[in-house]
Amino acid sequence: MIPIQGARLLSNINTLAQFGKQGTGVTRLSFSREDVDARNWLSQLMNDAGLKCAIDGVGNVYGQSPNCSQAILLGSHTDTVPLGGRLDGAMGVLYGIEIAQALTESGLIKDIGIDVISFADEESTFIGTLGSRSFVRMISPEDIAAAHNLDGTSLSSALSIAGYAGRPTVHVDADRHIAYLEAHIEQGPRLEANSKRIGIVTSIVGIRRIEVLFNGQADHAGTTPMAMRKDAGMALIRCANRIVDGFEVIRTTDSVWNLGHMSVQPGAGNVVPSEAKLLIEFRDSQTSALDHMERIIHKCAYEIDASGPVLVQTKRIMALEPAHMNAELGKIIEKCAKELGATSMHMPSGAGHDAQHLTDHVPTAMMFIPSIDGRSHDTSENSDDSDILLGLEVLAKTVAKISSIDN
Amino acid sequence: MIPIQGARLLSNINTLAQFGKQGTGVTRLSFSREDVDARNWLSQLMNDAGLKCAIDGVGNVYGQSPNCSQAILLGSHTDTVPLGGRLDGAMGVLYGIEIAQALTESGLIKDIGIDVISFADEESTFIGTLGSRSFVRMISPEDIAAAHNLDGTSLSSALSIAGYAGRPTVHVDADRHIAYLEAHIEQGPRLEANSKRIGIVTSIVGIRRIEVLFNGQADHAGTTPMAMRKDAGMALIRCANRIVDGFEVIRTTDSVWNLGHMSVQPGAGNVVPSEAKLLIEFRDSQTSALDHMERIIHKCAYEIDASGPVLVQTKRIMALEPAHMNAELGKIIEKCAKELGATSMHMPSGAGHDAQHLTDHVPTAMMFIPSIDGRSHDTSENSDDSDILLGLEVLAKTVAKISSIDN
Repeated sequence: MIPIQGARLLSNINTLAQFGKQGTGVTRLSFSREDVDARNWLSQLMNDAGLKCAIDGVGNVYGQSPNCSQAILLGSHTDTVPLGGRLDGAMGVLYGIEIAQALTESGLIKDIGIDVISFADEESTFIGTLGSRSFVRMISPEDIAAAHNLDGTSLSSALSIAGYAGRPTVHVDADRHIAYLEAHIEQGPRLEANSKRIGIVTSIVGIRRIEVLFNGQADHAGTTPMAMRKDAGMALIRCANRIVDGFEVIRTTDSVWNLGHMSVQPGAGNVVPSEAKLLIEFRDSQTSALDHMERIIHKCAYEIDASGPVLVQTKRIMALEPAHMNAELGKIIEKCAKELGATSMHMPSGAGHDAQHLTDHVPTAMMFIPSIDGRSHDTSENSDDSDILLGLEVLAKTVAKISSIDN
Repeated sequence: MIPIQGARLLSNINTLAQFGKQGTGVTRLSFSREDVDARNWLSQLMNDAGLKCAIDGVGNVYGQSPNCSQAILLGSHTDTVPLGGRLDGAMGVLYGIEIAQALTESGLIKDIGIDVISFADEESTFIGTLGSRSFVRMISPEDIAAAHNLDGTSLSSALSIAGYAGRPTVHVDADRHIAYLEAHIEQGPRLEANSKRIGIVTSIVGIRRIEVLFNGQADHAGTTPMAMRKDAGMALIRCANRIVDGFEVIRTTDSVWNLGHMSVQPGAGNVVPSEAKLLIEFRDSQTSALDHMERIIHKCAYEIDASGPVLVQTKRIMALEPAHMNAELGKIIEKCAKELGATSMHMPSGAGHDAQHLTDHVPTAMMFIPSIDGRSHDTSENSDDSDILLGLEVLAKTVAKISSIDN
């Protein structure tokens, strides 16, 4: 058994939450002063935990167990959205450091060590999951040169100011890394609704976004008879309704969709809408289900276009493939949870995570703990301390099992 | 027969179009420099036509036939929307002046004279149909004190700068005014679509606007299962669809509706909409039809509210009653058109006009001429000169018939 110290973990979570603290939450945007300070603090914490730590050229804080040819990689991210929560990814990084420190202190590390990483910019301040994508060589110098945040600051300039520009970047090592384990808060209500304390992620869903554009003609909404209109807004309403009807029929248990943006132009009560725009995002753990949903959108758009005077066009603006977690690792987590008396369930992750980029390179698993009321990306995000501590125990036991400390 | 001069009318239309000219169109916002200059020019034109003219305290340009105890009132408005057309209401005012001038020159005026009016601010720069509402005593000093344009300029200040503040206001006179006749471009495509050259307005439709507000909850669009969402956008889509289905069933031949504004908050692809807003405008010539449509909105809103976790509320933000034109006057216009060989049709006006405020005070009629492609409130607004001249002839003949010059 790895002699983890729950109180030390909770203390570290509290200390990290001071960097960018905003009431009960945190604003720690990538490469802000608060983020850079937090990375320096994390780096020191990893060194104190017996790891050999450095911050790389994109801001990844990476600590390696010295004198080991193999290691289990533990990590997540510590940047936040504006007015985000104190746990989110930070908890998973601090889990890793606590396990590493406990192993160092106990002298239990043998052949298989613990590496810990805090990936940079998971939350898309500049480039979503920048750190993990760089870690698997999915980021080019051109990507970095082109990226800006919402203020217009370039990523290159932010990396320079942080002092990271020009440093070497760290990468996944298939010989060294025998597994990547990421713990995270659920960011949704499923565990709570099912009264389970540990979520074992089966896959991270694929995400697609389709923009549906409607082009009609502005007309006086009093003097133009209904039959003579080219009403882009009406076409949107009819099209959206059919798409959702279609989704309802073919949905899998994992399917979710969101019509998160709709707008009509010019937007006046007495002018027939000339243009309308609908944004549909949909997610599923299976590519075939995503394809099916996309076909429904195309079919409905085609039918509305063919049946009326409004031109309807679709544009795919995002497509992320589903990422499947390693089933063997998932079974080990399930077994460890059971041995600790913790209820668990298998579930897809509806949100993206750094882990999705690791699956092609190293056996990868993710574990969730419950989010109170399913809240996240908000200062109201929270989890019970008892769940935070149980998650640490399950992860530590899983590490012990994989590295043959426990059997 | 009144010896009208078509060439003089067209020349006056062209001259008036120079005040605020913008390419093929006009921007002559109420009480702007251009509008005030145009009013001074109109006032002079009325005086030259033998009328006794003054501009009143709200900017109405009103010319009276001298030495007559009774008169037919002819008019419309000469202000425009931004980038509006050169005809719109201006044509009707200049019809009136041409008929007055022809009568003056011919010495045909006997007991019944011609009064001409250009009502102020029909186009809602400060207060929609300000001039005609003031003319029938529907405007209070408080209304004027409270009104501002989009720039934040107060109506009081605009009237002061124009030099109108403090002047007396002119009013309808049931003893003097035996009829009000307003000619206007159609602002829609019906005459053209029906190959008719004169529209005889049966009524000006009533207009209601209802805002439907949806209150749900923002959630992560990936991690929140569909069944656990309070999706305000989805409620809007379903509600709008049902309302339009309901309208289709109960519509009269005059009914029109427009869902001219819809929006969802926060408007992000990956966030379930927390709030949504739908604006529904609907028009009909019958109050009973308007009531029926409003009941459908309430029913659909109630059903969506009752069936799901999204709170739905409706708010009536505008209600204008239908105004019915005088049927006897309509028959006279129809007869005159026929005698002049002009095709005509009876039709409602889907747009509001100054005439709608006069109906309770004086026998009122409106006449349309065709708008090319139905365009209006745009610099592309136009009508054929032949239609403009035919409209003048029909109106002059109608005036002659009413005042017993013609029989």
